[in-house]
Amino acid sequence: MHVIVTGGAGFLGARLIQRLLDEGAPIDGERITRVTSIDLAACPVADDRVESLTGDIADPALIAKALGDDTGAVCHLAAVVSAQAEADFELGMRVNLDATRTLLEACRAHPKRLRFLFASSLAVFGPGLSQPVAEAIGPQPRSSYGAQKAMGELLVNDYSRRGFVDGRVCRLPTIVVRPGKPNRAASSFASSIIREPLAGVEVICPVVGELPLWLSSPRTVVANLVHALLLDGAALGDWRTLNLPGITVTVTQMLDALERVAGPSARQLVRVEPDAAIDAIVASWPGGLEVERPLGLGFQADSDFDAIIHAYLDDERGDELDN
Amino acid sequence: MHVIVTGGAGFLGARLIQRLLDEGAPIDGERITRVTSIDLAACPVADDRVESLTGDIADPALIAKALGDDTGAVCHLAAVVSAQAEADFELGMRVNLDATRTLLEACRAHPKRLRFLFASSLAVFGPGLSQPVAEAIGPQPRSSYGAQKAMGELLVNDYSRRGFVDGRVCRLPTIVVRPGKPNRAASSFASSIIREPLAGVEVICPVVGELPLWLSSPRTVVANLVHALLLDGAALGDWRTLNLPGITVTVTQMLDALERVAGPSARQLVRVEPDAAIDAIVASWPGGLEVERPLGLGFQADSDFDAIIHAYLDDERGDELDN
Repeated sequence: MHVIVTGGAGFLGARLIQRLLDEGAPIDGERITRVTSIDLAACPVADDRVESLTGDIADPALIAKALGDDTGAVCHLAAVVSAQAEADFELGMRVNLDATRTLLEACRAHPKRLRFLFASSLAVFGPGLSQPVAEAIGPQPRSSYGAQKAMGELLVNDYSRRGFVDGRVCRLPTIVVRPGKPNRAASSFASSIIREPLAGVEVICPVVGELPLWLSSPRTVVANLVHALLLDGAALGDWRTLNLPGITVTVTQMLDALERVAGPSARQLVRVEPDAAIDAIVASWPGGLEVERPLGLGFQADSDFDAIIHAYLDDERGDELDN
Repeated sequence: MHVIVTGGAGFLGARLIQRLLDEGAPIDGERITRVTSIDLAACPVADDRVESLTGDIADPALIAKALGDDTGAVCHLAAVVSAQAEADFELGMRVNLDATRTLLEACRAHPKRLRFLFASSLAVFGPGLSQPVAEAIGPQPRSSYGAQKAMGELLVNDYSRRGFVDGRVCRLPTIVVRPGKPNRAASSFASSIIREPLAGVEVICPVVGELPLWLSSPRTVVANLVHALLLDGAALGDWRTLNLPGITVTVTQMLDALERVAGPSARQLVRVEPDAAIDAIVASWPGGLEVERPLGLGFQADSDFDAIIHAYLDDERGDELDN
């Protein structure tokens, strides 16, 4: 079976591709034999079974080129992230909404009913919710990114209900610790305040210590995305949106863990200087969600934040994708 | 001030236009001096201040033609209704989603920040919600109409948050008693089972008697739409979606009221023959919503279902729009 991963050059996309190929991951009893990455850049996974199509994800011709008779699933991870979608409204609408729709239309035209995994985000939620946020609570996004993701969720659900695709929507927690450079997600600081001190570099934390975040490690998120893709659609029922499990950790608790793992000198490299623009977006997101249903379906959460830091240190030593 | 009403030839649109002109309805202290209706047909309101632009609501040229320097508000009521959007997916997407976005873009390009009233629907909700449904509960639509309306809500909210428009989203209850012929809304029966027996005509009720519906009379809905348009946006805060008040009435209670108003012979004209396609859509909608906030903001509900029937009989006698 052939699988398409949009955003396959990205941090999560490349890891998802690597893991799908490592596991062989049979979907409906068929093993994954090749993967096509669609992204602006080439997928960094060095494997003969990976083909990279580079270009604009909103381009129907590129999508048509990727789809084959053997295609069985599409993992749609490509996105313009939160702070960037806030700064460039048109770009966010085109990539986060229009490209999702174009991709869904291409899948609908495919002779098979394709599995369609859509990466959404806790950014669909608004402020002032009693926490943990129950599953029935609705998107009231306070960012264009959140609004665009919430619209994508509705599309995937309606396309699934009509039988055009077999969709699965995963609302991702904030992912820490991301390696490499900061990106334009409003939540980018959540990785930077751990990653930079571990590398002996000073960093500014743009939010207050009391802010609770809903966090997951990259490896747990990737494991959950694979699980969502492989799961029988019937187990999800007729509403295909899931809040992925995470753990609730305040910024201060994150820094306490940093100190436990790397000593007080590491923590002293973090300087808190609240930034109103970042805070307006991040503080509108819930710090905890009810995840009984996804846990019951076999999705996982990290054990605690110390483990997340240790996982980062392990991955950094062994991870060829970041070389 | 000039106001645009899309769907101005429709049942609600025409009544909204009539009422806006009757009241003079000052918006920000400015009286409404002219109204443009955009619809496939001409607006039936006979008034020199009404201009009808006929054509496709998704056509940017038509919208551009409607907007003037004196435009202060757009009331977007045009829609492909539930059963029709379910039967024709493309048409629903084009009218319910694309036209809404085109209209919002045109408003964004206008030099003034226009008021934008969007008629949404309780059809955005899914089944299995504990009732009355709280304000924070989210759309989990089980119809393409509901999905398209929910996406429109997200657009209006994000355009409002960004200051592109001054939006107000009203989720309309099921409106009874609509005069005239059945339309292609799945809820059309809710009017037919009262209207036809009152005219001595037999009618089939496609849902079971125990089904609770969330109802409003046309005059109350129109009064609420006018109120939503005139309200200071600041009163709505930064989330612009409101569940309009209604009353919870089961189908059996509706027929009991019919019998009280028009006698047992009227009720005997109603034959219950459940229709799975209609039931699948209508039974997924909630029969009651929490409306403390909208009531606090001055929105209204009907007193009871007998009053709704009497209002219909009054309107039918005096209403020139249906001649």
